[in-house]
Amino acid sequence: MRITEIRESAIKLESKLRNAAFSFDEMTTSIVAVVTDVIRNGKPVVGYAFNSTGRYACGAQIRDRLAPRLMKAQAAGKVSIDPQAFDPDAVLAAMMVGEKPGGDMERSVGIGTIEIAVWDAVAKIAGQPAYQLIADRYNGGKVDRDVFCYVGGGWYLPGKGVPELLDEVRRYLDWGYTLIKIKVGGVPLGEDVARIEAVLKLLGDPKRLALDANCGIGPDRRPAYAKAIKPYGLRWFEEAAHPVDYAGNAEFIAQYEGAVATGENLFSVEDVVNLTRYGGMRPGLDIIQADTPQSYGIGTLARMLAALTPMGWTARDVLPHGGNMMSLNFAAGLGLGMCEAYPDAFGVFSGYADDLKVLDGVIRAGDWQGFGFERQRELHALMAKAG
Amino acid sequence: MRITEIRESAIKLESKLRNAAFSFDEMTTSIVAVVTDVIRNGKPVVGYAFNSTGRYACGAQIRDRLAPRLMKAQAAGKVSIDPQAFDPDAVLAAMMVGEKPGGDMERSVGIGTIEIAVWDAVAKIAGQPAYQLIADRYNGGKVDRDVFCYVGGGWYLPGKGVPELLDEVRRYLDWGYTLIKIKVGGVPLGEDVARIEAVLKLLGDPKRLALDANCGIGPDRRPAYAKAIKPYGLRWFEEAAHPVDYAGNAEFIAQYEGAVATGENLFSVEDVVNLTRYGGMRPGLDIIQADTPQSYGIGTLARMLAALTPMGWTARDVLPHGGNMMSLNFAAGLGLGMCEAYPDAFGVFSGYADDLKVLDGVIRAGDWQGFGFERQRELHALMAKAG
Repeated sequence: MRITEIRESAIKLESKLRNAAFSFDEMTTSIVAVVTDVIRNGKPVVGYAFNSTGRYACGAQIRDRLAPRLMKAQAAGKVSIDPQAFDPDAVLAAMMVGEKPGGDMERSVGIGTIEIAVWDAVAKIAGQPAYQLIADRYNGGKVDRDVFCYVGGGWYLPGKGVPELLDEVRRYLDWGYTLIKIKVGGVPLGEDVARIEAVLKLLGDPKRLALDANCGIGPDRRPAYAKAIKPYGLRWFEEAAHPVDYAGNAEFIAQYEGAVATGENLFSVEDVVNLTRYGGMRPGLDIIQADTPQSYGIGTLARMLAALTPMGWTARDVLPHGGNMMSLNFAAGLGLGMCEAYPDAFGVFSGYADDLKVLDGVIRAGDWQGFGFERQRELHALMAKAG
Repeated sequence: MRITEIRESAIKLESKLRNAAFSFDEMTTSIVAVVTDVIRNGKPVVGYAFNSTGRYACGAQIRDRLAPRLMKAQAAGKVSIDPQAFDPDAVLAAMMVGEKPGGDMERSVGIGTIEIAVWDAVAKIAGQPAYQLIADRYNGGKVDRDVFCYVGGGWYLPGKGVPELLDEVRRYLDWGYTLIKIKVGGVPLGEDVARIEAVLKLLGDPKRLALDANCGIGPDRRPAYAKAIKPYGLRWFEEAAHPVDYAGNAEFIAQYEGAVATGENLFSVEDVVNLTRYGGMRPGLDIIQADTPQSYGIGTLARMLAALTPMGWTARDVLPHGGNMMSLNFAAGLGLGMCEAYPDAFGVFSGYADDLKVLDGVIRAGDWQGFGFERQRELHALMAKAG
């Protein structure tokens, strides 16, 4: 059994959402299809993935370098999609040939997306859910199918005021979610405080509300945000500082004291280790977010967890960035703390299998094959067109 | 006066060179041409640049996002190539619209290359060398036209032994260079020691020899390299650790004690600041290397220098990575410590203006316009074809 072709298709997100740092007007994503010569129900098994959200499509890297290298390594017998022989580290090594150390993101997005699409193909060939394959390799086979999901929402939109924000949060509650994250930093502090207080009144419990500044509050505004928001005792405050401004993150933590989260804009094990070494992060309280399709894939997520363990961190302290079937499978297979959900952002690239229900914030992973993209009708139609 | 078009052309390097971390077999670079409506000698003034060496061409990013954003900003009156109104920070800001913080290298190479090509156009329009424009903006007009250049050489090549390495070093000496850097880490330590001792015998003074491990010696081999090479008292030891493994760099420094250099694989002000905060680097002894076309361009190089100053660093502690006319102009305009030269690597993308002579390791910057690419016949022919 072998990969016969790797296809990429860039899709525009069609979103007007805005956070404190930037808007999604131009945003694209790459769908990757790994086509195999394994035939099921008269059709080749195809593994799919997409590069999460927030980083642009990377088809040029995939076509010019990454896919040809993987095909070359397969031809040399170094890479296999046979479930008995599959080695994600060999998939990564094949695509890293000819790459200089550091400056990861230019290739980590394409590599991570291809690596996950290969996992999807291998899991389908094995007739298993991706979370089971992931658990078997990295978590002693232990799966936690009940995954708590929080909503990453509360975006800024032109003309959106507090009433519209409350309508949005009410929708999430109606759908069964209980923990809601809203954006901050995109308006003056006074306006953000009014947004926070309104949502807090609706939710009742401050541990049901988290905030996300998306690195959009500079060092000048940061102390005022820490001081004003600390008394509310919210669930967490996300991306208070630039992703690699570890001193800025530590300084914010010293002022804010409450739980913080960051890491979705780190793309290597080395950067994540630096965050825990220099960023003032506290295991058991703070949260490390990893975007696995954007940071070399599942093998590297496992390496991140292994590097964090000696420093007192556990898988429960790590959340996958991005609300989609990939994140849900990572969380279920590795025992990650929880999963993100974007119930009405990013079109078909958000949400879970069409038949999944949210109960008190919990989603139960089903008996799908691979990542279960086939159970998400609109996304799968787009994937099937691409691959 | 305005930019009428931004063109990009990807060129293959055709090199079989290898360092301790990777080989250049597949390597490409992007040539950028910024075409203007300013006519000189019957032809439009065109600004050129290329994205240094070691990172792949980035035409997709340039065509899909960066060039359209710059043209849009120019149409909105936010960017000008009039020497009186030119603002490199506006050029950067225009291209950063819609970009998430962190993960710089995916865009910093394209942005840096375009930014430098804009400088080249503006300097040509002003009828001045780029180094003068750079000095006027960032260095109180102070130019140092005599730039000391060291050779970045001693690459591994199939079939190359110590005799061939000595032949290579003799060529550099014949051409007038006095400080030579050779690769280490790509063979067992014993072989590297034999290479070092042979070259040292030829050069005489240990301060005329530097080493470059290109992040290719892992933590397991690093202590042995520190111990074995420390007694020679060489000029510097480069990239002993992964680019962002600051703890590894600091540990190597503690063991090695002699001068070290690193930084060519950092792509933002934040990463360079982290290196000086956590990497054990010592101002006045160690060297910070920046690759400006790959890290957002000249405005960001100036911001790096400004961020380093309060920590005790000066421009003399900073060397530009990459041996070409761009680096020579940065060094002359900003008073950087020295400049790299690749006299016989990377084909037309290495070397300086054809008429420049090396005298005791020093090259004197001439009265060219822009970066002086026009004085490098073969490279300029390639640029003219691309733009």
